[in-house]
Amino acid sequence: MRLAIIGGDAAGMSAASAAKRRDPGIEVIAFERGPYTSYSACGIPYFVGGLFDDADRLVSRSPEEHRAAGIDVRLRSEVRAIDLGRRVLTVYERSEQRETEEGFDEVVIATGAYAGAPPIPGAEATETARTLDAGERFRAGLERGGGKAVVIGAGYIGLEMAENLVDRGMAVTVVDQGDQVMRTLDRDMAAHVQDGAEAHGVRFLLSTDIEEIVLDGAGRPCRVRTSVGELPVDHVTLGTGAKPDVRLAKDAGLQIGETGALRVDDHQRCPGADGVYAAGDCVESHHRVLDAPVNVQLGTHANKQGRIAGVNAAGGDARFPGVVGTAVSKVCKYEVARTGITEAEAEQAGIECVSAIIKHSTRATYYPGAGPIWVKIVADPGSGRVLGGQIVGVEGAAKRIDVLAACIWTGVAVDELSLMDLSYAPPYSPVYDPLLVAGRAAAREIEKRS
Amino acid sequence: MRLAIIGGDAAGMSAASAAKRRDPGIEVIAFERGPYTSYSACGIPYFVGGLFDDADRLVSRSPEEHRAAGIDVRLRSEVRAIDLGRRVLTVYERSEQRETEEGFDEVVIATGAYAGAPPIPGAEATETARTLDAGERFRAGLERGGGKAVVIGAGYIGLEMAENLVDRGMAVTVVDQGDQVMRTLDRDMAAHVQDGAEAHGVRFLLSTDIEEIVLDGAGRPCRVRTSVGELPVDHVTLGTGAKPDVRLAKDAGLQIGETGALRVDDHQRCPGADGVYAAGDCVESHHRVLDAPVNVQLGTHANKQGRIAGVNAAGGDARFPGVVGTAVSKVCKYEVARTGITEAEAEQAGIECVSAIIKHSTRATYYPGAGPIWVKIVADPGSGRVLGGQIVGVEGAAKRIDVLAACIWTGVAVDELSLMDLSYAPPYSPVYDPLLVAGRAAAREIEKRS
Repeated sequence: MRLAIIGGDAAGMSAASAAKRRDPGIEVIAFERGPYTSYSACGIPYFVGGLFDDADRLVSRSPEEHRAAGIDVRLRSEVRAIDLGRRVLTVYERSEQRETEEGFDEVVIATGAYAGAPPIPGAEATETARTLDAGERFRAGLERGGGKAVVIGAGYIGLEMAENLVDRGMAVTVVDQGDQVMRTLDRDMAAHVQDGAEAHGVRFLLSTDIEEIVLDGAGRPCRVRTSVGELPVDHVTLGTGAKPDVRLAKDAGLQIGETGALRVDDHQRCPGADGVYAAGDCVESHHRVLDAPVNVQLGTHANKQGRIAGVNAAGGDARFPGVVGTAVSKVCKYEVARTGITEAEAEQAGIECVSAIIKHSTRATYYPGAGPIWVKIVADPGSGRVLGGQIVGVEGAAKRIDVLAACIWTGVAVDELSLMDLSYAPPYSPVYDPLLVAGRAAAREIEKRS
Repeated sequence: MRLAIIGGDAAGMSAASAAKRRDPGIEVIAFERGPYTSYSACGIPYFVGGLFDDADRLVSRSPEEHRAAGIDVRLRSEVRAIDLGRRVLTVYERSEQRETEEGFDEVVIATGAYAGAPPIPGAEATETARTLDAGERFRAGLERGGGKAVVIGAGYIGLEMAENLVDRGMAVTVVDQGDQVMRTLDRDMAAHVQDGAEAHGVRFLLSTDIEEIVLDGAGRPCRVRTSVGELPVDHVTLGTGAKPDVRLAKDAGLQIGETGALRVDDHQRCPGADGVYAAGDCVESHHRVLDAPVNVQLGTHANKQGRIAGVNAAGGDARFPGVVGTAVSKVCKYEVARTGITEAEAEQAGIECVSAIIKHSTRATYYPGAGPIWVKIVADPGSGRVLGGQIVGVEGAAKRIDVLAACIWTGVAVDELSLMDLSYAPPYSPVYDPLLVAGRAAAREIEKRS
């Protein structure tokens, strides 16, 4: 049996490894467009920012290591077409500049996502940190000099990038069409994130369109023209969301969902196509709260889904249980986290909810390092169940989101949460953990209604 | 209605406040033996260690603040007897050195716990950090000088104390009769805690009995005689567990459970005694995994139980849902946490279990500050349910225990845990959170058996 993997990062190589581990007799061949395998895309902003210098530290498993495990890794090999009928891939070998055909019995599509440049003049000069080689080019460009940067997009990738560029000593302006940062949070919680980033030196232009990136004679950005005026720049980077890369899959006739990502079942199988699996940034995941497909581009899902695709491709029976929308990021002085659905998402989905926000302390107030933490809980007014949580705060705040994720996952109600046996010691928590206080506040909101 | 509160710390004053909030017409009178109310006993080791200098920072609500809320707080007032028939307390007013009688309709017993000095010669010269005034005396003694300390007991209180004394520049030896530190953990996990404390400079004498504390002419400790030889000392402190203080309640005829603590129902009522409530370190709590009563002395339970007692005393209907044995502490370079039951506790209770230990990283390995984390999961081999968890690791490790607590609380199985949507970002987690990896390792242990 020959299993082809399209894409050599988290999802693809997890699939390759899982299949090979489960059945060493399978021939596994992985095609990767770039020069790296299995790297942490989420870490690229920190590499660009100079938090560490060796890009190889982002690589969790090199092509050589995969080959030692019996996987045939083909680098700089771009799959250009999937023929499901003939069971053949068209592969462009970039180093030899020629196309070949490769047969397969089963295939895992792990083509990831791509940052589409905005449809404005000069967009071709924007830099990104989506792939490791793009990140390396970006960093090399920064080292050539120029102290003014514009980041397009005030989502978590844009904010991480802005923080890292400020830390390099650059003057950074984040421009976004929307009227709040971090639209994955409700506006009331996102305001704290913006405060923290501004205190770090990031400047924001919200509700602002970028009309043109003006290039100099060498083709490098020198000004950004926006709906509120011009900004001088040396670097423009895209921090906007990426689109699931389904071009190959679509051409092969596979089903694309309403989210724009590939449809898969809970075994990561592409419906209607035997022996075809897909995983990672290019697929839909089932959202357990919304009970609907979503496209969430995160390394943690890519790894899990890849493994599940690999196990199933090798004759196993593994199931991806879905997601609850958990995400976390570091934005300047604050840790920022969310899970479940926000109030805005509930409204959009027509789900009735109540919410409560509390401000508390990350540690006992007398313990050094204690600082503010805000917790917002969104709950179902009928059952009291936690539907969503958002956290912004100093060190120790973010990972608390996992408790809310577990509560959402299992259907815990806010009054039950408020009395749960969560850990307490002065270096880690006030005697009432902020989550208990938030649970109680949400329970009171529900009582008020009844 | 007159509600008497015996004990002015976490449980007692939570009860007083909750009752008064619920029904401002109730007369609430609180008797406290010492000079403080509502202080963080868990913070005393850090005050003794000099992490901060003002003992008042440990006080979350002063007697004046409670009085402003309408609670009649009587300091230095020691309740010496409860007459349930006559509904009268005998109170010794320490400042006036006289006994009075105080009537009551309902009473909340929140007498806490006491550190019994070991039955050895010289034990009267040991110092403790159980109450804030004892902590103040202890710290004043340390400031008079002497650089050698013996800590009796290698549990979490003893270890916290040892760390803080080392941080003051003292030479510290922890002596314990048992053959491992932190018996709240399994031996394999406790070994890491001992390693970390030794690296910090703490010396251990395990499997060692203390036979005598030899005093000098001024009545101060100068040597400790142990079963393995003598140690010169300037200070001896008790870090051993405390006993629930049920002396008053026992004399009043209330039921004492097998744990040695006061029996209460899930409304914090003392069975068979109308209008009598108890809460905090002196009572039993229902352990949801063992389905048995336990005595857990932690501020977080004291606060919750106190509030529930107060609400119910004021005519409400609140229920304490029990505990799962969650605890966390900082021991030198490691954060240490546990929840549910350990392998040893499972064996002792005759509960069949499997377990798995994994070592992983607290953050993405390339992210600064990443360090080791060990996670042990104890699970039911039949259902796969998580029965217990233990964590030792560097910054960011400890609070992860709350996710396992939530899993135990709700009955999540290890294979479900291994795919749960926990948060990932390089500053906070590897792409597979250590809890996911531990869940998977435990699931594999179960598969091996079947």
